[in-house]
Amino acid sequence: MTDRILTAAPLTAEAFHSFGDVIDTQRAPDKIINQGMCDRYTDLAKLDFSDGRAGISLFDAKARHLPYTVDLLERHPDGSQAFIPITPTRFLVIVAPDAGGMPGAAQAFFTAPGQCVNLHRGVWHGVLAPFEAPGLFAVIDRIGSGANLEEHPLDRPYIVTAAPD
Amino acid sequence: MTDRILTAAPLTAEAFHSFGDVIDTQRAPDKIINQGMCDRYTDLAKLDFSDGRAGISLFDAKARHLPYTVDLLERHPDGSQAFIPITPTRFLVIVAPDAGGMPGAAQAFFTAPGQCVNLHRGVWHGVLAPFEAPGLFAVIDRIGSGANLEEHPLDRPYIVTAAPD
Repeated sequence: MTDRILTAAPLTAEAFHSFGDVIDTQRAPDKIINQGMCDRYTDLAKLDFSDGRAGISLFDAKARHLPYTVDLLERHPDGSQAFIPITPTRFLVIVAPDAGGMPGAAQAFFTAPGQCVNLHRGVWHGVLAPFEAPGLFAVIDRIGSGANLEEHPLDRPYIVTAAPD
Repeated sequence: MTDRILTAAPLTAEAFHSFGDVIDTQRAPDKIINQGMCDRYTDLAKLDFSDGRAGISLFDAKARHLPYTVDLLERHPDGSQAFIPITPTRFLVIVAPDAGGMPGAAQAFFTAPGQCVNLHRGVWHGVLAPFEAPGLFAVIDRIGSGANLEEHPLDRPYIVTAAPD
């Protein structure tokens, strides 16, 4: 079986809407605080946990390069998962709709500098993939009991061959 | 009344223990994931909310410089508040113990590159203070009703005059 080619698209809230939230400042701040010294953009992600609670973890991930092979997708049935880059790292976000308990046709996105994402609960996705440089990320996800993980190896891997500038 | 001089100390988990959590990789990872490509440091902050829920917001804050005047401390009685720098910004963290409903003697800390902090619920602190450059931060705090804010103007301001390299 042949590989499937993906081209990464710029990450925008509209394009990513069915998979999760794009956390960025591409909107008006809702409040100016600290005597005018700080713009606040409040509550930009849908944190959604079946049980347990929200926690903050760190993921220190090695770089990925093109062509980038995606041979596994996974999902977390019990909670959303947000990725906040602490290092100035752009990253690839591979996601797929559910198709009867399996991932459907995948899409690839590429973050702009400073963009964060929150994957909605249960969304199929690839692993954290910092692009061309290693990256340290804060991850806001569910802390609780149980595996909260389904993995789906792909018979036909996807190959991401291009990303926006 | 005279000003009070503060020298910022390096931010360490030990020194910050009574005020909050230092979120960094100065420890062993608890899990290696993604086929060896990612070190995971799990659940590094005590998220603590009286009610409401955790949310992710963005704070885009202007730079502060030395000497830095602190004439107000505040606290959030209903929830913890974590600051995750998205830009490569170091920041000053001013905190004080409670002394009968008012802030006691303040201390100043200065983050290393990539360090994040989580202020415990109800801890007196200064406003977000990115050092020498503006900074974009993800903030994990309580989303809920009520002001969740006490402000305490200082009759005798603190002046932060020095920070570590």
